[in-house]
Amino acid sequence: MKNNLMRFALLILGVFGIVFNGFALASPNEQIASILEVQQYNRAIHIMAMLLIGFGFLMVFVKKYGRSAITATFLLVSISLPLYLAVKSAGIFESRGEIEQFILAEFGAASLLIAAGAVLGRIKMYQYLIMGMLFIPFYILNELIVVEDHFHFIGTIADTGGSIVIHAFGAIFGISAAVFLSTLKQRETPIEADATSDRYSLLGSMVLWVFWPSFCSALVPAETIPFVVVNVFIALSGSTIATYIASVSIRGKINAADIANAALAGGVAIGATFDHATHLEAMIIGAIAGVLSTVGFAIFQEKQEKFHKIVDTCGVSNLHGIPGIFGGLAAIVVVDGLDVSAQLKGIAVTIIIAVVAGLFTGKMISLFGKPDEIYDDETEFED
Amino acid sequence: MKNNLMRFALLILGVFGIVFNGFALASPNEQIASILEVQQYNRAIHIMAMLLIGFGFLMVFVKKYGRSAITATFLLVSISLPLYLAVKSAGIFESRGEIEQFILAEFGAASLLIAAGAVLGRIKMYQYLIMGMLFIPFYILNELIVVEDHFHFIGTIADTGGSIVIHAFGAIFGISAAVFLSTLKQRETPIEADATSDRYSLLGSMVLWVFWPSFCSALVPAETIPFVVVNVFIALSGSTIATYIASVSIRGKINAADIANAALAGGVAIGATFDHATHLEAMIIGAIAGVLSTVGFAIFQEKQEKFHKIVDTCGVSNLHGIPGIFGGLAAIVVVDGLDVSAQLKGIAVTIIIAVVAGLFTGKMISLFGKPDEIYDDETEFED
Amino acid sequence: MKNNLMRFALLILGVFGIVFNGFALASPNEQIASILEVQQYNRAIHIMAMLLIGFGFLMVFVKKYGRSAITATFLLVSISLPLYLAVKSAGIFESRGEIEQFILAEFGAASLLIAAGAVLGRIKMYQYLIMGMLFIPFYILNELIVVEDHFHFIGTIADTGGSIVIHAFGAIFGISAAVFLSTLKQRETPIEADATSDRYSLLGSMVLWVFWPSFCSALVPAETIPFVVVNVFIALSGSTIATYIASVSIRGKINAADIANAALAGGVAIGATFDHATHLEAMIIGAIAGVLSTVGFAIFQEKQEKFHKIVDTCGVSNLHGIPGIFGGLAAIVVVDGLDVSAQLKGIAVTIIIAVVAGLFTGKMISLFGKPDEIYDDETEFED
Repeated sequence: MKNNLMRFALLILGVFGIVFNGFALASPNEQIASILEVQQYNRAIHIMAMLLIGFGFLMVFVKKYGRSAITATFLLVSISLPLYLAVKSAGIFESRGEIEQFILAEFGAASLLIAAGAVLGRIKMYQYLIMGMLFIPFYILNELIVVEDHFHFIGTIADTGGSIVIHAFGAIFGISAAVFLSTLKQRETPIEADATSDRYSLLGSMVLWVFWPSFCSALVPAETIPFVVVNVFIALSGSTIATYIASVSIRGKINAADIANAALAGGVAIGATFDHATHLEAMIIGAIAGVLSTVGFAIFQEKQEKFHKIVDTCGVSNLHGIPGIFGGLAAIVVVDGLDVSAQLKGIAVTIIIAVVAGLFTGKMISLFGKPDEIYDDETEFED
Repeated sequence: MKNNLMRFALLILGVFGIVFNGFALASPNEQIASILEVQQYNRAIHIMAMLLIGFGFLMVFVKKYGRSAITATFLLVSISLPLYLAVKSAGIFESRGEIEQFILAEFGAASLLIAAGAVLGRIKMYQYLIMGMLFIPFYILNELIVVEDHFHFIGTIADTGGSIVIHAFGAIFGISAAVFLSTLKQRETPIEADATSDRYSLLGSMVLWVFWPSFCSALVPAETIPFVVVNVFIALSGSTIATYIASVSIRGKINAADIANAALAGGVAIGATFDHATHLEAMIIGAIAGVLSTVGFAIFQEKQEKFHKIVDTCGVSNLHGIPGIFGGLAAIVVVDGLDVSAQLKGIAVTIIIAVVAGLFTGKMISLFGKPDEIYDDETEFED
Repeated sequence: MKNNLMRFALLILGVFGIVFNGFALASPNEQIASILEVQQYNRAIHIMAMLLIGFGFLMVFVKKYGRSAITATFLLVSISLPLYLAVKSAGIFESRGEIEQFILAEFGAASLLIAAGAVLGRIKMYQYLIMGMLFIPFYILNELIVVEDHFHFIGTIADTGGSIVIHAFGAIFGISAAVFLSTLKQRETPIEADATSDRYSLLGSMVLWVFWPSFCSALVPAETIPFVVVNVFIALSGSTIATYIASVSIRGKINAADIANAALAGGVAIGATFDHATHLEAMIIGAIAGVLSTVGFAIFQEKQEKFHKIVDTCGVSNLHGIPGIFGGLAAIVVVDGLDVSAQLKGIAVTIIIAVVAGLFTGKMISLFGKPDEIYDDETEFED
């Protein structure tokens, strides 16, 4: 009797222990899942600050086109986010968490803003909307092929922070679109900045700098975040110092646009490797990217614009194009066990899709007109 | 003996299992409570960015009144937060978590800043302080009656993000106060903006846009955040695009103030329904709010100012008043199982309290003088 | 047999219970550690916004030196963060979490930016880099002696938010460096601001205000955050209102630089006590700091500059020096069980190291030249 009671008590204790723990654990585990998604949301907000305030104000460097640049940013973000979410909600795509899907939409919006930077000031406001509507499907196509390897054609690439599929894609799309959106007259019109527009631009640059680690780490697991975000900050520090040195060395004086732009090249380039590089490698990649980008702005941009007969208003090929491709290639040196062939195929396919899609989109937009009065709020804004 | 040892071992194991788990669990559960409150704190910081940088710079659109607008924002926030916390620490109010209480104080400060937008530039700096001290008690009274239903008079309303009790209350309070704070001479003085002040204003607007989801979701449970914050972003996207289309359609050209203000109307209007609407409903509510707000700025404002013989410096009735009421009414269509009578009573009581309190406060402030030199830093600031 | 089966079942249940719980618990506990570190990361981002956007734009008040001030901020942050991390990775230092170490590096960068504020506009861009490289080792030395009490000389001081070791150290270092970086001609050159530069400066000030609680609470345990962050906001509210009243009382009119700077003095002063003070004490400390700082800007700065034959461009002794020391001393009244002797020794040692290190650094920098054309972008920037 006593024995049985004892056994019964033990049984109750044991079962109760498990059941109790089961219940109690369920709650923390579910709450932890929620907490992790809210932490993703925090990074989503940081990215949104980059999209609107960062990219928006970076483009305010064009002296008389500030209100237009900001309004264009508002419209590009507002058209691309819902469009991306709508397309991705179609049954053919893998279903994802609400915030994860939203962050992917923000990545698309970032790439679009980069593309728009190439033609900034030379299209009408509604043409930005058309650009956004045409861009997003192509962007999703490239994402499907290169990132998700939906057609089992590429393999697995290293590009968590989007050096290739966000930055290079957007830049190449933009300069390809510019082929049909740069008239001779436009090519001869100078793009003017002044002290006030430069300071706004540097504000945008700082916002991008500050939140860049959240952009790269938006979708990485919580436990890897501490190391990788420091990597991003170190890469940005590297490019910032390298940009200053390169700018003074090449030009004799510092150029505010170099600082506002090329200082960010470390963030662009580290996107493919921030989750694999050591801190020292991050510093080196950042520094090289800063030099490459400054050389781009100071030397190549003029030549490239003449060669391709285009205008690249914000110099996106120097900030996002070259550093993005460089970052993608740097993975070959930095990432252990990288599938090099996949990485190269990923870069090549991204370039091809971006060129074709950009040319097509530029041509389509150009059908709605190529204005003569450019880089000026007054053509579309009330006084 | 062996049996007893075995039983003893099992007992120890069982008890130890439970006790161990009990201790171990206590720790995660307590830590989770802390973590959730720190996540609330993150949203509190986002709201603070909206209050100071967002509202502050949105009001810098008045060309010569920028330093004053920013200083007024500083003072209004600094007087209202401690005052709200002090009043709410009185024994008659329900006790709450430190951060929850602080977020409620921030909501009050937001409503106050909206109210102050109506009379901006036409009162002295110390009069903003008086306004803040009179506003907060009335705001708490309305909160007590309408949100907490302390007197069991209203019932439960849908207004988590404050379309009614924050935005509409603040706007109606402000334009009511303006009745006693708009002289004939003041009504004839134009409010001037320029390219630089517009760009500051658009900066403020972007800060508000970016952090708006944290404003709405500040106090909702973590597990509902992912869906509802995307709703807020979608509503803002809807109002931004609708504002551009409405602005061009009505005026022929884009108006920078429309973009800076009406683009946010989706955020104002979705406050009552963001936690119930589908994404599509959020988009529609946002778009309608954007159109209503733009129509308000482009057409109604002048008529309303003439009719009520007031000046509404920032057009708060167009950004916060009409979209706020519209948002409150939209809940009737969108929210399943809504107590419609409570919702209507909540809106009506809010309007009544705001009108009475605003008229009283405006009259009180006007006793300290109505300056002739307005919208100009120079009257109160050193060069 | 039945007995044995039963025992076996119980044994399995018990062991399984423990093992299962062990595994299951391991996961939440590890995840909670990750989550807490990601929350630290959020605060690290807030601090980064303060460093670049906050300090950077606060220094844009110098009318013609905006691009330089922002570039200097970029360079100072980019040189000091990696340098701090590199030094601290040496074996002699305690190893810490990645983010914790990074936040300590940000504290060093903040102190450096304060120091640079004293000589802003009177050194060349590369001299800021030299300043950063010399500053960080001294800062780490002071941290080692005063904060970590590595030599068991000081004892435990109250200074979690860095009133003494970040703010006062940076300010005293800066004005000491200014002794060798203020020529007679420089002392006679006025520092000009205008409406646009003031508005940028107020933007920087607001960014600092908003994120200040994350600066103070960056490394405190999650469970204490709710109370202490509200303390910081209350102290800032106190100094903001006190600054307005003091500015008008002393000068007759409001001074924009007072508002941009002294409004933050509450944040500086509360750093030593925000984790011990009551809300009322926080308000009082903030208000006193606001008054002290405004008196400093309005009355003492000119006298001090004449007395020490220096120029303190940003008035860092008024914003960070005096309020920092005051905050350190306020702990004597506010903190129960404070080791008063340690607190006083900590303040004294910090002052001594800052003076010696600042003089040395100023002398070293002065060897590279003291420019005649100052406070002007044009000397180093392309048009």
